[in-house]
Amino acid sequence: MGLFPNEHETIDGVGRALRSGRRSCVEVLEQCLDRIVEWEPRIKAWVTVDREGALEQARALDEELRTGHCRGALHGIPIGVKDIIDVAGMPTAAGYRPWSGKIAAHDAGIVASLRTAGAVILGKTVTTQFAWIDPPVTRNPWNLERTPGGSSSGSAAAVACGMCLGAIGTQTGGSIIRPASFCGVAGLKPTFTGPMDGIVPFAPHLDHPGPIARSVRDLGLIFMEFFRLEEAVTPPLSGSEEVEMLLAKTLAPLSRPPRLGRLRGPFESQADPVARAAFDRAINALTEAGAEVLDLPAPFDFEDVSRDHRAIMAAEGAAGHASRLASAPEHYKPMIRALIEEGNAIAATTYIDARRHQEELRTKLFGCADAFDAFVTPATIGTAPDPSTTGDPALNSPWSFTGSPTVSFPIDLSPDGMPLALQLVEPRLLRESDLFETAQWCEDIARRAFRRRGN
Amino acid sequence: MGLFPNEHETIDGVGRALRSGRRSCVEVLEQCLDRIVEWEPRIKAWVTVDREGALEQARALDEELRTGHCRGALHGIPIGVKDIIDVAGMPTAAGYRPWSGKIAAHDAGIVASLRTAGAVILGKTVTTQFAWIDPPVTRNPWNLERTPGGSSSGSAAAVACGMCLGAIGTQTGGSIIRPASFCGVAGLKPTFTGPMDGIVPFAPHLDHPGPIARSVRDLGLIFMEFFRLEEAVTPPLSGSEEVEMLLAKTLAPLSRPPRLGRLRGPFESQADPVARAAFDRAINALTEAGAEVLDLPAPFDFEDVSRDHRAIMAAEGAAGHASRLASAPEHYKPMIRALIEEGNAIAATTYIDARRHQEELRTKLFGCADAFDAFVTPATIGTAPDPSTTGDPALNSPWSFTGSPTVSFPIDLSPDGMPLALQLVEPRLLRESDLFETAQWCEDIARRAFRRRGN
Repeated sequence: MGLFPNEHETIDGVGRALRSGRRSCVEVLEQCLDRIVEWEPRIKAWVTVDREGALEQARALDEELRTGHCRGALHGIPIGVKDIIDVAGMPTAAGYRPWSGKIAAHDAGIVASLRTAGAVILGKTVTTQFAWIDPPVTRNPWNLERTPGGSSSGSAAAVACGMCLGAIGTQTGGSIIRPASFCGVAGLKPTFTGPMDGIVPFAPHLDHPGPIARSVRDLGLIFMEFFRLEEAVTPPLSGSEEVEMLLAKTLAPLSRPPRLGRLRGPFESQADPVARAAFDRAINALTEAGAEVLDLPAPFDFEDVSRDHRAIMAAEGAAGHASRLASAPEHYKPMIRALIEEGNAIAATTYIDARRHQEELRTKLFGCADAFDAFVTPATIGTAPDPSTTGDPALNSPWSFTGSPTVSFPIDLSPDGMPLALQLVEPRLLRESDLFETAQWCEDIARRAFRRRGN
Repeated sequence: MGLFPNEHETIDGVGRALRSGRRSCVEVLEQCLDRIVEWEPRIKAWVTVDREGALEQARALDEELRTGHCRGALHGIPIGVKDIIDVAGMPTAAGYRPWSGKIAAHDAGIVASLRTAGAVILGKTVTTQFAWIDPPVTRNPWNLERTPGGSSSGSAAAVACGMCLGAIGTQTGGSIIRPASFCGVAGLKPTFTGPMDGIVPFAPHLDHPGPIARSVRDLGLIFMEFFRLEEAVTPPLSGSEEVEMLLAKTLAPLSRPPRLGRLRGPFESQADPVARAAFDRAINALTEAGAEVLDLPAPFDFEDVSRDHRAIMAAEGAAGHASRLASAPEHYKPMIRALIEEGNAIAATTYIDARRHQEELRTKLFGCADAFDAFVTPATIGTAPDPSTTGDPALNSPWSFTGSPTVSFPIDLSPDGMPLALQLVEPRLLRESDLFETAQWCEDIARRAFRRRGN
């Protein structure tokens, strides 16, 4: 398992092989199924693996390719779906035992989009209970004595060991970026877009669905299809060559070195020495390659944002869970129970003030960052801790609060062999395509630097 | 003072006289100023009357008409603005003494729109303190021992005695429909559209700005201009004849009798015998004229809606006022202080549940009413009470909660000579133009019936 993937491990590389006929969808799926056989007993990344259904999808998609019809970059790509997101015909258990037989009638909106785009929906990945922080059964593929992070624990772990080529997670605090970083893969928390169709909510003003994959480009290839509504596109992507031509022009890295704002203060002081050293090395490599890195204070009061993020999360979590908890307390895990109690004690005025702060900050950030391509911070405060927790989301939660899109990708291994990652933030909403350009440039430099250091 | 206006008292009639050159803007303004001299010492409807500024506006608008340029239906029409809404160069005191010298730098968005549309901004009308329910100095023109209602007290009273031809108010519970009804004039609470630019908020998820005038058509003529952003329109309204032609086709009454849903249950049982008798007479007149009136239950649980409206109003009011109240308690009136205390005690989960109920109800109502042109209810539970309160908004608040547009217009006088009104509700959002059609048809029938009864 390497920190940076080869072309057989990425959606981009596998997709090209599929479209050129060098590989088949069934063969790609079988490679993933083999990895599941090999790793799953130790990793426990899956709640449901729909082996037969996935094979049926893959065969149909192979047939389409044989007739010259290609749906796009995800055609034939096996994808895992976090188990708070509905996949038609499978239970959505959300880590809550009473729901273990609760079969979803319909795909969630983004699942339907990915399916239309040709993705093979392979199964449901383990989530912490209701996507909060109670530790799950899943273990970190880099070290079985470490957490994979949470709450998108199974999504990150499954991608890390090749059980699927991409996965969908959700983030309310740091639930995409943190597990992706702990597992040595890439994560995208997109712009906040409001209530999530077919996804169990936790805090509706903080919840974000997003992809986990092996590279920034792969994140982009999945994200591009999040909002696909029907099979027909204009012009229709019928032949593999057209898809190849289109994709060659899509999601290119920035053609010049970026200007980055390095957020000094709590975004760095909270990181431990190992994480800071790796971050410093990455910043040096970026600077040497021509990036302009300017020191900046955070564009908000970190303490205020963390406090108000917590108030919204606890209050909305409590409002969503209070009556279910009252009726079945024995099925709730201790950490989520504590959060609901915390949320029940919050005053409406505190919550309203926090929401107002959130809206004001979004407006302020929208106008703040023209001078930079992105902000840059460590992705986590350190490597994955032992599995009694899911780790600390402190550096991610502020961006779940602002709704700004963030991307993370691996940059280094710690002395004890655990992955560390870097987080890029586009503070303005809906600028994912700019962020992908910047992040690909930086990821490329980080990979070269990592290899130059003899890895 | 009649319950139904003659053409010299409406924006529609005065506007035609202005556009045909039979009257001048200055002369129309002077008529209003004369009414102010006559009535204001008893009524106390105004905080500021900008006599000189208004004369200057009227002269400039007369000059435009002389050169053949007409801005539309409001060209030269004197308008009053509730004193929580910014008018550039005048204080926005909101009934709060420390703000009595707080000059607004800019017009609120809707004031700027009305000014661009040619309205003469005559001054600021009395509001209850921060648009809550502490009784204001204003008295009811129909009886000085009665309240004009609130919180848009001055706006309704000023229109009722011809001090201006239209006025802008705001409604969070029943603050447009209630004072308009108590004062024998017409009111529109438009669709909820979100935060109000340049207007002191009370409860941002319930606050609505809207017009008060002498007829439903006049309400429509003002409302049409609420969102005008620039002077140029396409095609440009340059000549009075074009305006006349355009307006003749605009805001026509329904050409067939409407189907109305009469909301039985709390919307009627809360009304007192006098209000119910007047409402029954109006319904009979509508039915005799061909309207189909079907008995319906309210499309929601009245108690739940009233409770959740109250929770949102108190919690958002408390969040907005708590720090100001703490720093200057001596300037806060007793009823608003009590509401802030009530709001401070509300739990975040209660507020979140109430907001969720509000959003769900909006969605539900959106699909509910295809079979009806509008719901119909009494506008108030009775006539204006004595001035120790501003009256009861019970029949209006549910629609401030749902955000549905509502229109009220006078239907009758009580045995003791006080006005009573009828409220029409289009439960679906943004259907004001349909509501104006239905309301004009009904208003016409109500006026004829009133006159037939020998008034």
